[in-house]
Amino acid sequence: MAGSIQSVERAAAVLRLLAGGERRLGLTDVATALGLAKGTTHGILRTLQQEGFVEQDEASGKYQLGAELLRLGNSYLDVHELRARALVWTDDLARASGESVYLGVLHQQGVLIVHHVFRPDDSRQVLEVGAMQPLHSTALGKVLTAFDPVAHREALELERERFTPRTVTEPAEFEGVLDLIRARGWAADLEETWDGVASVAAPVHDRRRMPVGAVGITGAVERVCDDGEIRARLVAAVRDCARAVSRDLGGGRF
Amino acid sequence: MAGSIQSVERAAAVLRLLAGGERRLGLTDVATALGLAKGTTHGILRTLQQEGFVEQDEASGKYQLGAELLRLGNSYLDVHELRARALVWTDDLARASGESVYLGVLHQQGVLIVHHVFRPDDSRQVLEVGAMQPLHSTALGKVLTAFDPVAHREALELERERFTPRTVTEPAEFEGVLDLIRARGWAADLEETWDGVASVAAPVHDRRRMPVGAVGITGAVERVCDDGEIRARLVAAVRDCARAVSRDLGGGRF
Repeated sequence: MAGSIQSVERAAAVLRLLAGGERRLGLTDVATALGLAKGTTHGILRTLQQEGFVEQDEASGKYQLGAELLRLGNSYLDVHELRARALVWTDDLARASGESVYLGVLHQQGVLIVHHVFRPDDSRQVLEVGAMQPLHSTALGKVLTAFDPVAHREALELERERFTPRTVTEPAEFEGVLDLIRARGWAADLEETWDGVASVAAPVHDRRRMPVGAVGITGAVERVCDDGEIRARLVAAVRDCARAVSRDLGGGRF
Repeated sequence: MAGSIQSVERAAAVLRLLAGGERRLGLTDVATALGLAKGTTHGILRTLQQEGFVEQDEASGKYQLGAELLRLGNSYLDVHELRARALVWTDDLARASGESVYLGVLHQQGVLIVHHVFRPDDSRQVLEVGAMQPLHSTALGKVLTAFDPVAHREALELERERFTPRTVTEPAEFEGVLDLIRARGWAADLEETWDGVASVAAPVHDRRRMPVGAVGITGAVERVCDDGEIRARLVAAVRDCARAVSRDLGGGRF
């Protein structure tokens, strides 16, 4: 059994560092943040730059992430079976609901958005594929936490940040929320992550009936909710979509 | 001056391999393709898997690209100054032209799409951010080849594949095309890459008047062309957009 390769781990740590916070860092900043010698850090940065994973700004000499990551990220999506199966169904859901649709999978300690269909109107919208959402407060995240034991462990271990006055952060209350989600088969986020924004999501299962992702819609509370609850027709549309994608993955009817 | 780190180079080669061709490969396939020992290859794959850059399919044991690449690719876009400056202008161009808009930069031996605005109609469209386009046949690629000496060298060295009967592959003819592009300040692709599809693009310059990217529209020849030529109003709209983005980058008027 081969062990891990330290220089590859360090290269990954450099990329993670450049993906968060400042995003443009000098050699000394990177070396200090990772607790490495400058010479070691320079060797890693130089190799990453040569491979296109890192770019150096000519004027400032600072480092930032490189274009090769975008190309590889796109290739990752190309082989993503869940996303491929969901393309048509999520388009239909956006049309039926009139809201933006998101497909997410568990990644690290959050939800990684692997597909995003814009709300079908003329408004300017920013694509969020590749963005992360929190596990404990979004509908997608709560669905994964309720149905995927790995996500559940992550969500319990994490500090659950209070984004709005409605975010549930206290452990016992959070477990109660998850029980309700398991009983109902879907999750809601009523202004628990963003003020004025509500979302609803349902789990996608594969042929082994494992939860492999979550699909849902997000929109203004005024449109998505009625009397403080998600509109029943939107819940039904989201669950129909999740069932259709699951069926295409071989998950069978449920 | 630090040298390159061999194991990081090898890890990058594994990712490139998984991004092309088969995309799901077994340990032996990877080792054979890269000419490495199985033990070495396993160590690299294991480390990449642990860092989220590679995923292993449970059923087949085969390796494919991992979710962390999507997250990092999205972070790359977040710091992309050209893309940030172009967001509003490319939206305007899509509206004005009624066609899909692409923003591309030189990456390796091709054009990397860093922004894509859908054609403003209800048709189903697939997002192409992170996809690559050829240098020698697309409008974006020809603009970069005409104005960026590095792209020019890449385009001349590469085998120029004949995608359609209209693709220009012969060196002298290709240089003549580039001279015309330089004289006019814009490039067209009249069914040279895809049958039935035409595109037009213009260069974006930064404050040092260096070509940093290309912006253009792509659509059905029936809509984009008139009498075998790109419609003058579409050429004007694309050049207006390229000038606006250049101005926002500090490139001045030209």
